[in-house]
Amino acid sequence: MSIKETFEAHIFDLQNRICEGLEQSDSKGKFVEDQWQRKGGGGGKTRILNNGKVIEKGGVNISVVHGELPDLFKEKFKVEEASFYACGLSLVIHPTSPKVPTVHANWRYFEMYDKDGNIQTAWFGGGTDLTPCYLDEEDAKHFHKTNKNICDKYNPNYYSSFKKECDEYFYNSHRDECRGIGGIFFDYQKADETRTMKEIMDFCIDSGNAFLEAYIPIMEKHKHESYTEKEKVWQEIRRGRYVEFNLLHDRGTHFGIKTKGRTESILMSLPSTVRWEYNHKAESGSAEEKLIDVLKNPKEWV
Amino acid sequence: MSIKETFEAHIFDLQNRICEGLEQSDSKGKFVEDQWQRKGGGGGKTRILNNGKVIEKGGVNISVVHGELPDLFKEKFKVEEASFYACGLSLVIHPTSPKVPTVHANWRYFEMYDKDGNIQTAWFGGGTDLTPCYLDEEDAKHFHKTNKNICDKYNPNYYSSFKKECDEYFYNSHRDECRGIGGIFFDYQKADETRTMKEIMDFCIDSGNAFLEAYIPIMEKHKHESYTEKEKVWQEIRRGRYVEFNLLHDRGTHFGIKTKGRTESILMSLPSTVRWEYNHKAESGSAEEKLIDVLKNPKEWV
Repeated sequence: MSIKETFEAHIFDLQNRICEGLEQSDSKGKFVEDQWQRKGGGGGKTRILNNGKVIEKGGVNISVVHGELPDLFKEKFKVEEASFYACGLSLVIHPTSPKVPTVHANWRYFEMYDKDGNIQTAWFGGGTDLTPCYLDEEDAKHFHKTNKNICDKYNPNYYSSFKKECDEYFYNSHRDECRGIGGIFFDYQKADETRTMKEIMDFCIDSGNAFLEAYIPIMEKHKHESYTEKEKVWQEIRRGRYVEFNLLHDRGTHFGIKTKGRTESILMSLPSTVRWEYNHKAESGSAEEKLIDVLKNPKEWV
Repeated sequence: MSIKETFEAHIFDLQNRICEGLEQSDSKGKFVEDQWQRKGGGGGKTRILNNGKVIEKGGVNISVVHGELPDLFKEKFKVEEASFYACGLSLVIHPTSPKVPTVHANWRYFEMYDKDGNIQTAWFGGGTDLTPCYLDEEDAKHFHKTNKNICDKYNPNYYSSFKKECDEYFYNSHRDECRGIGGIFFDYQKADETRTMKEIMDFCIDSGNAFLEAYIPIMEKHKHESYTEKEKVWQEIRRGRYVEFNLLHDRGTHFGIKTKGRTESILMSLPSTVRWEYNHKAESGSAEEKLIDVLKNPKEWV
């Protein structure tokens, strides 16, 4: 099978496995699927879990799209006539409890063709990152370590480079703070003299397969913890920062909106209840302030 | 006095008058002021009213800034060396009740200078628009009529042109709907053979002075109406659309963020509690659907 066929089959399978794993840990909520078609070619399956026992709002979406390259991409890559193929899985899980971190992940593959249908360029991108409202250092270590283990199987430089890219990408520059405590992020991963496309794909497949191992233990650890009304308010304020990142800075959101993607699938990443308070400051010495410190000064966790 | 001095004095005075008028109708909340300085020159006075009797979160801000033209503007206007002066008042009022519409207004003046300090170009911009969660046609007519009356004093074409610009500008293209039921919006208003800068300024001053007359009767009319939990949820969903517009599309927000403006003053425009529900649809024949119809098909109100 080609890279494209192999990876496409993987993301269909991965969507099933991730949804099952999340439903099992949630123990109540069920994902509901919406299938959609893209006008220019292809479509997707959006799966949403609402008001579970642990998960307040979660989406695990896949899309396989193809057709004429959108104008935005044509300008970017300076080509006049080109077609493309892209497939990927994108997920965001917003738990009800402020004690259970939000998680995001995405793995995607892109091919661009010249007018004769030959592949001009192709790459993989993706990553996963954790956004807690309260910092648990053991969670941070576990999440980063699980992802580092996968990286290390392929290249000793992957983790440090992708960890840095993650901190730099998920950054609310207007707040001078990271969105969360990071993870890994990589884009435009192409074959070169040091690696084949198949090796990059295998890394992406392994990275996707490690998602449940990276996240479920964290969900399990905190899902029975109690929380106060004040902690819930703090979560909603932090969710405001999440919304700010996704709408102001995220390239994926902007690309989706500008190319007239399916709005509800793109914006499923936004949490259910959110709050903005003018000039909110965490109290000095508080657990809330401890989180902010780490968001302003990303740490090495492993 | 120069245009700049006259208009600057006006916005200081207008901030006082608008805050007083809003406090009076709210009958409980008080605006609290934060003064801030801009690194490159100038500063502002941000006034926020939180948890009033009618107003849940409102901001009435003025800023007077000057200095070297930010790089973003240099690129836009294709100048290499230039300084600028800008002053303006910007306000957003989010009432607690879904029955009382949100309102936004802004009036601003901009001057750009060459390296010898001569004015190269100058313009006024501004407008005001109403965002109800439930449509009251009388409110819409009153709000538009009040603004049309000011427009008509200066130019018979102002209202139709500025009304159209408002519908086009406050548009959530990814939702195929307007943010609200409009009002007036204008930008880059410069002196030409048909009008002097002073005439444009007088129009902007009159437009600002008409704000309380346009909005307070609407606030008064609805502030004692009861509402249900379901109507409050609808309001929070509509507020989500407001956030989407401000963060995804608003040029003012993007300019402020990109030029490292004061984040808390820029994002005071965001409402307090907000909600996103996946694929929410208004019930057929409901009051909620009636609003959506008007947002998708802007009407002529006067």
